[in-house]
Amino acid sequence: MEFRSHQIAVESQGFCDILDLTPQLGALLSREGLQEGSALLFVGGATAGLTTIEYESGAVGDLRAAIERLAPTDLHYAHDARWGDGNGFSHVRAALLQPDLEIPVSGGELLLGTWQQVVLCDFDNRPRQRRIICQLRGRFAAA
Amino acid sequence: MEFRSHQIAVESQGFCDILDLTPQLGALLSREGLQEGSALLFVGGATAGLTTIEYESGAVGDLRAAIERLAPTDLHYAHDARWGDGNGFSHVRAALLQPDLEIPVSGGELLLGTWQQVVLCDFDNRPRQRRIICQLRGRFAAA
Amino acid sequence: MEFRSHQIAVESQGFCDILDLTPQLGALLSREGLQEGSALLFVGGATAGLTTIEYESGAVGDLRAAIERLAPTDLHYAHDARWGDGNGFSHVRAALLQPDLEIPVSGGELLLGTWQQVVLCDFDNRPRQRRIICQLRGRFAAA
Repeated sequence: MEFRSHQIAVESQGFCDILDLTPQLGALLSREGLQEGSALLFVGGATAGLTTIEYESGAVGDLRAAIERLAPTDLHYAHDARWGDGNGFSHVRAALLQPDLEIPVSGGELLLGTWQQVVLCDFDNRPRQRRIICQLRGRFAAA
Repeated sequence: MEFRSHQIAVESQGFCDILDLTPQLGALLSREGLQEGSALLFVGGATAGLTTIEYESGAVGDLRAAIERLAPTDLHYAHDARWGDGNGFSHVRAALLQPDLEIPVSGGELLLGTWQQVVLCDFDNRPRQRRIICQLRGRFAAA
Repeated sequence: MEFRSHQIAVESQGFCDILDLTPQLGALLSREGLQEGSALLFVGGATAGLTTIEYESGAVGDLRAAIERLAPTDLHYAHDARWGDGNGFSHVRAALLQPDLEIPVSGGELLLGTWQQVVLCDFDNRPRQRRIICQLRGRFAAA
């Protein structure tokens, strides 16, 4: 039984850019040979979150619209009044969506549904390079 | 230290049906004899989510009303316009609530509050048979 | 590879009091000497939740405002009509935010961003003493 920490690097455009992490996560899993266990994903920083969705442009756009209703871009935010960085909405969205997501692994496969992808939602108000921590835990195939 | 993957099967009515998984989860825990560790629950598919609530009809109805405000049934969804399956609201709700939930276990017991139950929220627009992955991890009693 | 369950005790004022747990969590981690693994946090009870945020009064106030929009204090709640304890809004908020949060640990450090703190959101309608379960899992330094 082991824990191995890795990172997945992505370039995001910010402003609720929603990026599919599933291919990189699947590749990492194969390379490391995790057999039974899970993958804990975590995005450091307080302006992004993780979830799953059917990654097609319709559902992704619908999620963006719901997040806009939840914490509208054009509301007054006390964070902005105090710090002037203009990303108060990003902080609220990230706190509501949360930075952690864990996916069970069995038989060497992520136990996702067929139409279910793992996504990063980058809520910041500028492009960002993001490094998502991916901690694999469990039993690995012998090297 | 071990990981053991199981499933909990339930029949849901969809349309934000909220089902108490706690009895089945407790029974699984006793049967497997997990002593110290946790239970990771995960619902595969992109139209359902997991959380905890005091499982009484008042609070459950209040949660359903809040979810209806968050992603109303009768809004326009781009997912529906594109795919015609009419469950755009289900996808948005599931992405916001998320498919994973982890509950610590100590002394052979789930460390839930007295009035706190583990629930599946099925957001799809039709009845579904659901299989919730339940991965037990930690130290088990000797068989 | 071990699981060790601890608790972090805090006094909250309720009514969406948002408390920074990071100092206590960091101290626990150092004391126990967790090297590689994670910290699973879980709040028992159905009227509180956990997340991360940049812990400064602006962003914290903005999050409180967003939660008020999500499940307003002054709405009708069926839970209240049935039980008369007046905290229907607390139950809905807690179910939406969820009681669990997991943070990866590597090199003896929580892998949080620089401006990212772990917070308890206490949604109840009265002051509470809260005990947050903190389960450390992974490889510990030899005592």
